[in-house]
Amino acid sequence: MTGVKHQKWWGWGVEGIAFTHDDKPKLAPFVMEKIGIDLNAPGTPPPAFDDLKVPASQLGDDLAAKLRDTVGEQYVETDDHSRVVHTYGKGLVDLVRIRAGDLPRVPDVVVYPGDEDQVRQVVDAVVAADGVLIPFGGGSNISGSLTPPPAEQRVVVSLDLGRLNRVLEVDEAAGLARIQAGALGPDLEDQLNARGWTMGHQPDSFKHSTLGGWIATRSSGMQSDKYGDIADITRGLRVVLPGKVIVLRPLPSTSSGPSVREMILGSEGRLGVITEAWVNVHRVPENREIIAYLFPTWAAGIAAMHEISESDASPTVTRVSDANETAFSLSMQKPSKGLAAKAGPILFNVLERRGWDLSAACLSYIGYEGAESHLKHEKAIVGKIVKKHGGIKLGKGPGALYDQKKFDTPYIRDFLLDIGALGDVSETAAPWSKLMNLYANTIRAANDAYDELGVKGFAMCHLSHSYHSGACLYFTFAFPPSTDVPAEQIEQYWVVKKAIQQSFIDNEATISHHHGVGTDHAHWLEDDISPAGTDVMAGLLKSVDPGRNLNPGTLLPAHREW
Amino acid sequence: MTGVKHQKWWGWGVEGIAFTHDDKPKLAPFVMEKIGIDLNAPGTPPPAFDDLKVPASQLGDDLAAKLRDTVGEQYVETDDHSRVVHTYGKGLVDLVRIRAGDLPRVPDVVVYPGDEDQVRQVVDAVVAADGVLIPFGGGSNISGSLTPPPAEQRVVVSLDLGRLNRVLEVDEAAGLARIQAGALGPDLEDQLNARGWTMGHQPDSFKHSTLGGWIATRSSGMQSDKYGDIADITRGLRVVLPGKVIVLRPLPSTSSGPSVREMILGSEGRLGVITEAWVNVHRVPENREIIAYLFPTWAAGIAAMHEISESDASPTVTRVSDANETAFSLSMQKPSKGLAAKAGPILFNVLERRGWDLSAACLSYIGYEGAESHLKHEKAIVGKIVKKHGGIKLGKGPGALYDQKKFDTPYIRDFLLDIGALGDVSETAAPWSKLMNLYANTIRAANDAYDELGVKGFAMCHLSHSYHSGACLYFTFAFPPSTDVPAEQIEQYWVVKKAIQQSFIDNEATISHHHGVGTDHAHWLEDDISPAGTDVMAGLLKSVDPGRNLNPGTLLPAHREW
Repeated sequence: MTGVKHQKWWGWGVEGIAFTHDDKPKLAPFVMEKIGIDLNAPGTPPPAFDDLKVPASQLGDDLAAKLRDTVGEQYVETDDHSRVVHTYGKGLVDLVRIRAGDLPRVPDVVVYPGDEDQVRQVVDAVVAADGVLIPFGGGSNISGSLTPPPAEQRVVVSLDLGRLNRVLEVDEAAGLARIQAGALGPDLEDQLNARGWTMGHQPDSFKHSTLGGWIATRSSGMQSDKYGDIADITRGLRVVLPGKVIVLRPLPSTSSGPSVREMILGSEGRLGVITEAWVNVHRVPENREIIAYLFPTWAAGIAAMHEISESDASPTVTRVSDANETAFSLSMQKPSKGLAAKAGPILFNVLERRGWDLSAACLSYIGYEGAESHLKHEKAIVGKIVKKHGGIKLGKGPGALYDQKKFDTPYIRDFLLDIGALGDVSETAAPWSKLMNLYANTIRAANDAYDELGVKGFAMCHLSHSYHSGACLYFTFAFPPSTDVPAEQIEQYWVVKKAIQQSFIDNEATISHHHGVGTDHAHWLEDDISPAGTDVMAGLLKSVDPGRNLNPGTLLPAHREW
Repeated sequence: MTGVKHQKWWGWGVEGIAFTHDDKPKLAPFVMEKIGIDLNAPGTPPPAFDDLKVPASQLGDDLAAKLRDTVGEQYVETDDHSRVVHTYGKGLVDLVRIRAGDLPRVPDVVVYPGDEDQVRQVVDAVVAADGVLIPFGGGSNISGSLTPPPAEQRVVVSLDLGRLNRVLEVDEAAGLARIQAGALGPDLEDQLNARGWTMGHQPDSFKHSTLGGWIATRSSGMQSDKYGDIADITRGLRVVLPGKVIVLRPLPSTSSGPSVREMILGSEGRLGVITEAWVNVHRVPENREIIAYLFPTWAAGIAAMHEISESDASPTVTRVSDANETAFSLSMQKPSKGLAAKAGPILFNVLERRGWDLSAACLSYIGYEGAESHLKHEKAIVGKIVKKHGGIKLGKGPGALYDQKKFDTPYIRDFLLDIGALGDVSETAAPWSKLMNLYANTIRAANDAYDELGVKGFAMCHLSHSYHSGACLYFTFAFPPSTDVPAEQIEQYWVVKKAIQQSFIDNEATISHHHGVGTDHAHWLEDDISPAGTDVMAGLLKSVDPGRNLNPGTLLPAHREW
């Protein structure tokens, strides 16, 4: 045993935890109304592992011996379960494929180095053998960055960073921590919290993603408005390349030419293996609050988020859901008792009498941190803006509930697959001036795609991650495919997903704000950064990896040579 | 005439403006005490232009015809004055060389394209002729990025962006402006201010540097704590490469792989010609104040700046000078009258009675912007921190004075050269935990270098640009060389400059926070970003510019092939 924890081979998260609607009486009617699926009908659970046909490992004896010599016998795995766990990320296509037992190319071996020196030796051995090396962190990628190219003839090695999970050092005088790349969110936060510090990085995948994965995909967290995206948080890096190690010391800022740090960020394994990083850490804040607000319309909510971003206030979280996502959130509520049970209906009644169309109402969460007097100052500024845009404050209760439940959302996709529906996400970022059109056109594109497929689909959206010049829009979509055949389901999925991604490009938004490029979004890379920009990126990859040994197939579109 | 304004061929800024000590009675005694130079002795003015021996242009007829066809006769200059203006930046070595008439390699032609299409044609023509292309903005570079390699045998073309000086578009709904790369600071701020907007970027070079130059060197401005470094401000780009144009649309954030935007930032002409950028712009603030404070010691000032950066306050400017720079600032004061004349001595008297050692006192400026109530909130937070560290508030008066005079400083180097002293700057950034050692060791390194040279030198420093994990330290040094021979003066300059830069590296700081690499700092690049990191950068440059046509010689150390 390696001691490294993994997610389910067939789905999100850990065995024994799953999404259930048993305690959410409003959900079944909601789902029936929106996508015509009966949550109470018998579902199809994932297959048994033993039913999978796993292709044999093609690991040659020489490389096997070299790997075992390097990391030790117990840290080289060639059994089917380990190899299958390392075959896919957790994108919707990954989930459908693994449930279908679709395993055209599985890593031939999984290696668990225990330190950077072992990583170096593994990288050198794989490149010397002209193999393919795929770094693996928490396995939570949803852009197709982890899957070996189906036609890959060379030996494929999955390099699992799971043993490199320690906070090595905290520079308390600078607010910096040196952390190994394989540390999962809870691992590193527990170690930091024990010393009074936090990184403050909370992506939805937090429990099952690693520091190295965050850096390699340009992750962003719920609190990025305060703590920054991972690109801001990451100050220093160590990255293993064939025959050498890039060492970038932690610097608050520098003008030392084109940023190598910003080349490693988002490199998805194509520019080597990140082994550790220096990251900004902060004292656990004195006070922390997430307050819920309600806006009469999506336009009012967006306008308020924009005005907050321009204001003197600097909240940690700015998030607003569209009417569909708000309705979905309300359908997810557990039954409340006593006063709480009455508060909702009473409030809604009051709002209706004030002229609100409740079906258009939009739920918002704003986060605050700092001294009590600072929270007061910030909440006063935000409160005025909310009021100006016709919104009302719901209070701390719903905010705290959201904060507790935020990491549970990804489990829903497996639940939907059980009952025969496909659900996934696409997120982007664009200037404030483009957001309303981007939103309307993308929802329309999803609905047109559903019509084209002749299915009853649903799409919802929230805004999060506000910047001076724009914000992230995060779309979630679900529909019951009109076929049981997995390959055809995937085709139908792509009709919807492509419509959404194409809408991003057509509306001057990026292909992804924080999920990376992978193979899923590579098709639009040239539209995003221009063909000449793609040339520059391809030239960089080729210069570092002339043999295409480092996670080939990700980042660049298929027709590109590198 | 091209209509493009240039700085003096021999020094900083425009003809008719020069530094004078006539209205600063305390300066001459201060300079005498610190470096033993008599400001009232007759100086040596710069030489006359006609005394220069300018090598003839090597521009061939074919390329000349092609350039004239492209941009028009009047926008192709081959006269000596134009070519000399485009030979050097304004580093100390540049200034000594030009005064000495040292012109080993002068651009053969200066071209002023009027639009991006002309830029493309010029770039293609120069590369087709295997020439060298050096983009030129305001000519204020002080790291040696603008000077043709002395031994360059190929035709050298200086591409002056000065005609591309317009704000093309303001996206008011997003807070973004599209601005041509050749716009000088005042040009673009005037155009923005007229519409109620500001970019807020104020480097010391503001009046004589361009947007394209800021981007190409990773510039930072006085107000970067609020507005961000140019790397944060720059959201979209257009960059001309041979045969193509990189187009990066303005995005608040993106996870589209290794950041091409962050490769262009700091590229110093080696990755093509920046023609325009989308930048963050802000409404001209309601209120703007710079308040001066005084700390009893440097350590107290640094500690206060650090605590402010960790606090709930977010001022626009955080700056503190060491005791030497504080003394220099006081020596630069004009004689005051009436009450003001008495206020200083009275205050100093009070402080001495409180136990201050006034020779250790450190002057600080903190900037605030926003609504009146916000300024009050922020000043209260900062005020408490200042008090905690033993500091006192001096008020708005000195702050406003500093704000008015901040762009005059670079003129002093020419004034010092007139009287026979060399003065220059070196700046860096490092984590907060390293700053005190970095400071002490760098001052010691400068003093050791003076001792080695047997000269009486002076070094001073300020902290500016605070980040979560660290800050910029900006050193200014001056000494009278022990020789009149320019080449020997440059050698002596390098003894001091190298000692300072080496101290940066030895104390875990970067080679430059915002002046770029150029040729002057390239020697330490491998120490800064590691040899493997330098490999990655070199691979990128080679892949984009296999013929070494784009500003070769900058960024990489001399022993590197690319």
